[in-house]
Amino acid sequence: MNIEFPSFVEVLDFLGTFAFATSGVRLAANRRYDWFGALIAGAATAIGGGTLRDILLNVTPAWMSNPVYIIWIILAMAFVLRYAKYLLQFNYTIFILDSIGLGLFTVVGFDKAISLGMSTWVAIIMGAITGAGGGVIRDLLLNKTPMIFQKEIYAMACVAGGFVYWGCLEIYLPVYIAQILAGTFVVLLRIATVKYNITLPILPQIDHEP
Amino acid sequence: MNIEFPSFVEVLDFLGTFAFATSGVRLAANRRYDWFGALIAGAATAIGGGTLRDILLNVTPAWMSNPVYIIWIILAMAFVLRYAKYLLQFNYTIFILDSIGLGLFTVVGFDKAISLGMSTWVAIIMGAITGAGGGVIRDLLLNKTPMIFQKEIYAMACVAGGFVYWGCLEIYLPVYIAQILAGTFVVLLRIATVKYNITLPILPQIDHEP
Amino acid sequence: MNIEFPSFVEVLDFLGTFAFATSGVRLAANRRYDWFGALIAGAATAIGGGTLRDILLNVTPAWMSNPVYIIWIILAMAFVLRYAKYLLQFNYTIFILDSIGLGLFTVVGFDKAISLGMSTWVAIIMGAITGAGGGVIRDLLLNKTPMIFQKEIYAMACVAGGFVYWGCLEIYLPVYIAQILAGTFVVLLRIATVKYNITLPILPQIDHEP
Repeated sequence: MNIEFPSFVEVLDFLGTFAFATSGVRLAANRRYDWFGALIAGAATAIGGGTLRDILLNVTPAWMSNPVYIIWIILAMAFVLRYAKYLLQFNYTIFILDSIGLGLFTVVGFDKAISLGMSTWVAIIMGAITGAGGGVIRDLLLNKTPMIFQKEIYAMACVAGGFVYWGCLEIYLPVYIAQILAGTFVVLLRIATVKYNITLPILPQIDHEP
Repeated sequence: MNIEFPSFVEVLDFLGTFAFATSGVRLAANRRYDWFGALIAGAATAIGGGTLRDILLNVTPAWMSNPVYIIWIILAMAFVLRYAKYLLQFNYTIFILDSIGLGLFTVVGFDKAISLGMSTWVAIIMGAITGAGGGVIRDLLLNKTPMIFQKEIYAMACVAGGFVYWGCLEIYLPVYIAQILAGTFVVLLRIATVKYNITLPILPQIDHEP
Repeated sequence: MNIEFPSFVEVLDFLGTFAFATSGVRLAANRRYDWFGALIAGAATAIGGGTLRDILLNVTPAWMSNPVYIIWIILAMAFVLRYAKYLLQFNYTIFILDSIGLGLFTVVGFDKAISLGMSTWVAIIMGAITGAGGGVIRDLLLNKTPMIFQKEIYAMACVAGGFVYWGCLEIYLPVYIAQILAGTFVVLLRIATVKYNITLPILPQIDHEP
């Protein structure tokens, strides 16, 4: 086996996977699930978005070609099990990691769609699905209303990041500059909206549900 | 860019997409979601069924090749936002548009399965998935029990329409006649079952849920 | 049409499909769904796992090539409708059939992944998805928290069976021996864990859900 050093993007990808998996496992722990259920919740959060993207793009999901994703998810569960009582203190750290994961996954999803010959507007949607889809699948499995429907700006940050990516490419910036700018934009937008409690306007009530 | 006039089926397809999207956005509005959540709910309703069909048929979802679907969904949300207070008066109009969408999507799904070489019984199922699948996905996202499990005849109308389509082809009617008859049958069946409150028999209770 | 006698594995496959469909229909009956909703719940349980596996493996779902699965699901519903009042007495029989279905579907899923050139660890996951995925999809549709997150060892038995399969192949046992051993292991493990009420450890509570 050749040992290859992971690239910077891969390191971020692994960190993002770890952060996303940790958030899924924590949610399962709070609902008193057993550790297998927690593993599923962690996996859904970490690789669910990318899987949904790859199914839509009609290619084999990325995690099926490389066991590293599953290994990171198992490590995330071991981490939660071991350090459960200290995790409250790491809330902010995990939030930051989660935001970095969101930004990175947006860029990864955008890139993959473009590399498969999709239009830019499809790439923006694929970036948002990669970033926010895992959380939606986790929430569906845990039988709660997906977070994207409420309160925080989350998937919206991915869409905004996709437009930044598009804009960078339109003015002929190099791809790696566009990646860094778009990813950073998602991270900062996510952090800013949580910090300053920025939300989108709510729709007016129309009638009582039929 | 060449401007092409849309065909009659395309016009109905757009109307159906608009009606389905409107129904999704309205449901989200009644739950006080923000406008991004409402957009997702509208998109799930309008293109969810076709997406599920295309994933099962192992082809790229139709909406990813043509931005017109997304544009119609955004227009539907703008329409709901602008005319929210008058929407109650349009309830019947939207119900009719939704029924037309159901009939049309059934025909579109049936056709697509046949054109990809599937058996007729698969085409009937694909018609039902195209017509009723979007509502199921919307209900899953909104964390409510999918409507197809309760009360109204909905997916069942699509299945019945699929059998009508099949029958028309069996007696060598031209395809466009079969499309019109099957689609109209779905629309009328849907409207009739709601108007006369026709429901399917409920299963007998067996035991308390384990 | 050539009449072919089904192989032993096919007979088990049909029995498993029937048992899984019966369990889905029963759950729907207990929730007072109409018979079309019950059919959907039965189908989701019986073919949902295999469908999810085939979507991930990027091939056309198995049930779309052979109407026998749909026929078995319809028979299962007729069976529940006809014998509803006696079904309580068959609880143990259905549990055994369901366990056999779980073991068989695990083997079928593992085999299919391997035959499509996937790694062994992917095959283990595909076995678990084939065995336990249908129940998850049914629970999502019925809007309850999927059973895999709680109480019983279910998907975990499939994963364990996958490891048994792997081990058998590693020591060069013939494939059919590996299939029988792995499948039997899943069945016995499932029955034993229910009989002796064996559960996995629950994760420690971390904080109140945000």
